[in-house]
Amino acid sequence: MSVADRLERQPSRVHVTEVGPRDGLQNESVILSTAEKLELVHALMDAGVRAFEISSFVSPKAVPALADAGELVAALRGFEGLHLSALVPNRRGAERALEAGVDAVVMFVSASETHNAKNVNRSVAASLEGFEEVARLLEGSGVELRGAIATSFGCPFEGDIEVGAVGRIARHFADIGVRHVSLGDTTGMATPPLVSERIRHLREDAPSIVPTLHFHNTRGIGLANVMQGLALGVDRYESSIGGLGGCPFAPGASGNIASEDLVYLLDEMGIDTGIDLTGMIEAARVATRLMGRDLPGQVSKAGARLTLGDCSAVPTARG
Amino acid sequence: MSVADRLERQPSRVHVTEVGPRDGLQNESVILSTAEKLELVHALMDAGVRAFEISSFVSPKAVPALADAGELVAALRGFEGLHLSALVPNRRGAERALEAGVDAVVMFVSASETHNAKNVNRSVAASLEGFEEVARLLEGSGVELRGAIATSFGCPFEGDIEVGAVGRIARHFADIGVRHVSLGDTTGMATPPLVSERIRHLREDAPSIVPTLHFHNTRGIGLANVMQGLALGVDRYESSIGGLGGCPFAPGASGNIASEDLVYLLDEMGIDTGIDLTGMIEAARVATRLMGRDLPGQVSKAGARLTLGDCSAVPTARG
Repeated sequence: MSVADRLERQPSRVHVTEVGPRDGLQNESVILSTAEKLELVHALMDAGVRAFEISSFVSPKAVPALADAGELVAALRGFEGLHLSALVPNRRGAERALEAGVDAVVMFVSASETHNAKNVNRSVAASLEGFEEVARLLEGSGVELRGAIATSFGCPFEGDIEVGAVGRIARHFADIGVRHVSLGDTTGMATPPLVSERIRHLREDAPSIVPTLHFHNTRGIGLANVMQGLALGVDRYESSIGGLGGCPFAPGASGNIASEDLVYLLDEMGIDTGIDLTGMIEAARVATRLMGRDLPGQVSKAGARLTLGDCSAVPTARG
Repeated sequence: MSVADRLERQPSRVHVTEVGPRDGLQNESVILSTAEKLELVHALMDAGVRAFEISSFVSPKAVPALADAGELVAALRGFEGLHLSALVPNRRGAERALEAGVDAVVMFVSASETHNAKNVNRSVAASLEGFEEVARLLEGSGVELRGAIATSFGCPFEGDIEVGAVGRIARHFADIGVRHVSLGDTTGMATPPLVSERIRHLREDAPSIVPTLHFHNTRGIGLANVMQGLALGVDRYESSIGGLGGCPFAPGASGNIASEDLVYLLDEMGIDTGIDLTGMIEAARVATRLMGRDLPGQVSKAGARLTLGDCSAVPTARG
């Protein structure tokens, strides 16, 4: 495959953060024990995954599935080379995350006023103000501060989200020293043209920010959006093993893009992730067993591309 | 969305052929009655679908699900504006298709010798020779002759398929007057670089051929392959409603790319298909009911992009 065949700005290496333990599990009706979560994380580590959004330091009452955030971080922080990030909504969450020993704290806010109000019961401005407090708390701690903008591509309540809203929040993050900001496609409303528009504006509005794309496969086009991101040169993506999760607004809909399908696509495009597909297929099977349900990821069912078939089972005259 | 945001050669209009009644149903364990197939086809017609690969004139013993090919064509050929194509493996099949009253006859062969032998029990060369006979049969009939090349992107028995094998078959089709040739991704082995390579070679080897891309979502990257096809300017795709079908070589794997997800993606990219998404979501629901199982298509579960959520059901502190 010649380089000319690839899209113009396609990166040669992509950084994949596994968000299954956080975004995947928070939307599942089955709640895993800490030991089960660790089994899944270790299966992913065996496949070469090093970056995890491991949990969320929110109220255990609001998200019972993530109530063991502290224990999970404590059990994993001794492993060299691992990068553990966790979501925090406010100063209290950041204190708990720091105490547990995360490598990065991810402050989240929604680009939609309505979604932010429903989610964290405050205005976007109030959320942003709270982040300054978290930034001060982290000063000198060695822990990285990151940002996540939920509903960056559309809101299930408000519909379209003005591109400027995303840019304004990104600028605020840049102002308080944040480098990595994830654009969250919370309910699967991203499309290739919206990915282009948002990335181009972000680069103008907040040029110091390195964007991460976080897609859900709610409407089946998650990896088409990744193709658009790659064409724009975006080299950081978030995904969840097996496509864990779902959408609280659409029963039966898919969750995050499946990590193993993402790694398969990137592998086939000659893009290095440092992650082994065979190991990811195994991890997806662990996730399926632990959740006790079929998960939406595909490549784990069919096997890698050159997994050859059983010659005796061939049907005839299929076209 | 500015035109500059779109990929270089992206077509403004795309032709979608619905292959659910043929490729979808031939791989399902549930066999629909002719009346049920007609209910599904009418739901698709209500959504604006006009081009159907409606069945396959193969041995009813080999593919019992398609034994009613003749009745199905007879029931539909009176509808104005409809384009009905059907697969034929040989002269006998073509005679039956002609008699039934199709608009186009699709001759199929595999790019893989092993797959072709297993599928139709003859060599690729013997298949191609048989096509000349079919071409003569159709002369003056007003019925279009088309070609389909199975395993164009890889074979479950042989693995990688040399790009020249596809080009040679395409040239043969061109020599006997065929204009439309579909590259079949029979078991979901296509990848974006292979799509580029095959399309570029096809355009050199057989410049008179108009390619159609026929992807399966076996490994989850079907719409990523469509993105690559669009970037190359390919404007003809085949898909099946609901993602009907499956893969005889991979139990549990997905079938063709889902027509409604394809139409959703194209709509959002500003590409005209003449097909209405709401109608397609309805047709996917009809397909789900008729098959009695969950189908892999996604947008029918979540609804169109601006389907807004129930504000009372919002979860909190999700990030």
